[in-house]
Amino acid sequence: MTKVLDLSSPAVFIGRQGNGVISFGSGQPDLPPPKEAIEGVNIRADLRYGLIQGELPLREALSKEYPGSTADNFVITNGASEALDLIFRVLGRGKVLLPRPYYYSYPPIVTMAGMEPVYTDLVEGRINIDDFREKVKDCKAVLINSPSNPTGRIENISTLKEIEKITAELGIYVISDEVYKDLIYERENYHIHGDHVITVNSFSKTYAMCGVRVGYLWSADQRIADQAIEIKTHTSMNTNLVGQDMALKAMNVPKEYIVEQQKIWRERRDLIYDGFCRLGFELWRPEGAFYILPKCKNPREFLTVLYQDYKVITYLGEWFGAPDHIRLSYALDTKLIEEGLSRIELAMKKVKCL
Amino acid sequence: MTKVLDLSSPAVFIGRQGNGVISFGSGQPDLPPPKEAIEGVNIRADLRYGLIQGELPLREALSKEYPGSTADNFVITNGASEALDLIFRVLGRGKVLLPRPYYYSYPPIVTMAGMEPVYTDLVEGRINIDDFREKVKDCKAVLINSPSNPTGRIENISTLKEIEKITAELGIYVISDEVYKDLIYERENYHIHGDHVITVNSFSKTYAMCGVRVGYLWSADQRIADQAIEIKTHTSMNTNLVGQDMALKAMNVPKEYIVEQQKIWRERRDLIYDGFCRLGFELWRPEGAFYILPKCKNPREFLTVLYQDYKVITYLGEWFGAPDHIRLSYALDTKLIEEGLSRIELAMKKVKCL
Repeated sequence: MTKVLDLSSPAVFIGRQGNGVISFGSGQPDLPPPKEAIEGVNIRADLRYGLIQGELPLREALSKEYPGSTADNFVITNGASEALDLIFRVLGRGKVLLPRPYYYSYPPIVTMAGMEPVYTDLVEGRINIDDFREKVKDCKAVLINSPSNPTGRIENISTLKEIEKITAELGIYVISDEVYKDLIYERENYHIHGDHVITVNSFSKTYAMCGVRVGYLWSADQRIADQAIEIKTHTSMNTNLVGQDMALKAMNVPKEYIVEQQKIWRERRDLIYDGFCRLGFELWRPEGAFYILPKCKNPREFLTVLYQDYKVITYLGEWFGAPDHIRLSYALDTKLIEEGLSRIELAMKKVKCL
Repeated sequence: MTKVLDLSSPAVFIGRQGNGVISFGSGQPDLPPPKEAIEGVNIRADLRYGLIQGELPLREALSKEYPGSTADNFVITNGASEALDLIFRVLGRGKVLLPRPYYYSYPPIVTMAGMEPVYTDLVEGRINIDDFREKVKDCKAVLINSPSNPTGRIENISTLKEIEKITAELGIYVISDEVYKDLIYERENYHIHGDHVITVNSFSKTYAMCGVRVGYLWSADQRIADQAIEIKTHTSMNTNLVGQDMALKAMNVPKEYIVEQQKIWRERRDLIYDGFCRLGFELWRPEGAFYILPKCKNPREFLTVLYQDYKVITYLGEWFGAPDHIRLSYALDTKLIEEGLSRIELAMKKVKCL
């Protein structure tokens, strides 16, 4: 019997795994975290408050990844989510330019801080620099995400440099969410920089430790870090100390860990991208992260049938500002991706989705 | 040489320990956490996102401490701080009644959520129910804290029941911050209840694990929990999983752990209270938590001399809405409390503080 699903948000699907369900929903690595991050950690006996800004050894280790930085430039947070929340609470007023499609938490985070989201629509999954230039003028900040959830696309380095320049000239903050920076298939990450740049990052995706909730913000502008610390003093205090120990241990893992992971992700990317092309969907080829965003007619019906008749979870594109699309994460074993593709092919016979 | 201290907030003192400094500043237990919470924990190998609401076994264990509750009534948070921040972001608009003196994070948390703090002044460290009754009428919510940081006082059970009744009749939310509920020297905790009550609590003080950052909110009103979860989905996701495991292990510790702790706190309370009386200060006798708030003339000068000449950290009462007072935490070994008292006696000869 068909039950009407509440499709107002991804909440209906969160935690719905097992029982033969194949979930292309939640955006988190299925691979195990590096064993060093688990086995190497001793839970400390002194569990008193740590520094609100974050433990010094972790911030010092991070500063080596950001040329010209010191430990002072970082604030360790409860994942990238809290970093974003703190940043917009610091900025506090004005418009924020968001490329659309966007990660679904961006508009509520911006709105809750009392700021107003405005949108620039991506073209072929990339920022249209002319539209960007026009719309950014009225804004206090812009939030970019390359590689992107939900598009899987990366911006060209020339675009990133242009954004860096335009915003520097206008005195507009760039918040660069780079949580997928180690999951780029095509090139090295370009770390956008300047006093007006605030970078957001996390240990969640690179080291498969989403549940540990350790992320950070980087800013060359000491006032941003100071104000974030001031707010965090009242809203959550230090980030959990055991998680920070685990993050530090993870950073000592040899680079091969990341290279190995990239190989796995690339194989999965090829499998799902080719599969969706073969099924006739129109979609962008992912260049980073682990998402596809195929065009889809009747997405609500398709998603409901997929879930109820075939136990396949997919997300609605409209949650990401992309109506007439569905969004899939391919953080799954290749066998499951193949099985998922077969089920999707069957569901396509029941709902006109192309 | 005397340097001018920036006394705008406690920030100047945070982390200033060692080197012979005696800190009566930060409000956290100096005692070790129960060994079961440290040795008993295996860091799990699956570190994917947990439920935003919190891990089920922990919420089930908590529900046994709250008669008539189920796991659904709880949201696990990054300490009590995040619980408070989420609650006021859920409530969103209107006035919040705060007994004054208050914990220093209350006004900024209320203000950041877009709400307006109004104050009822404590009399002898307790709520004046007539003033409370008058002022609460215009409010959407009231935030109480018994035992209180910074006063160390507890409300009479009759007052708590009266608050429960007045607010129920008027349809006003009571947020009851009970993080010191296991540190009452005089009686059992009275758990204020009703559909209009939201309780905030934490593992930090009871189990001496402040740095682990695990707290929670309890509400019988499902909408409050649901809306808090909705916000937390965007602002921090699940609370760190290792910390939740540690909290669950801590809950299994025999009750004697808590009784033993209370004995230590009571001894320290007597020592510092008697000491301050002997020195001639006017102060309330603490009945819970681990704070005193003596009256003090020229508090800025006294605090500066104490720190610069005698390496003793105390906090300004004005940070807690209590000008002409200083606030001390006695989360210190009795030897250090005695040494601190001697140094305070010396400083009193330099600054007229009585």
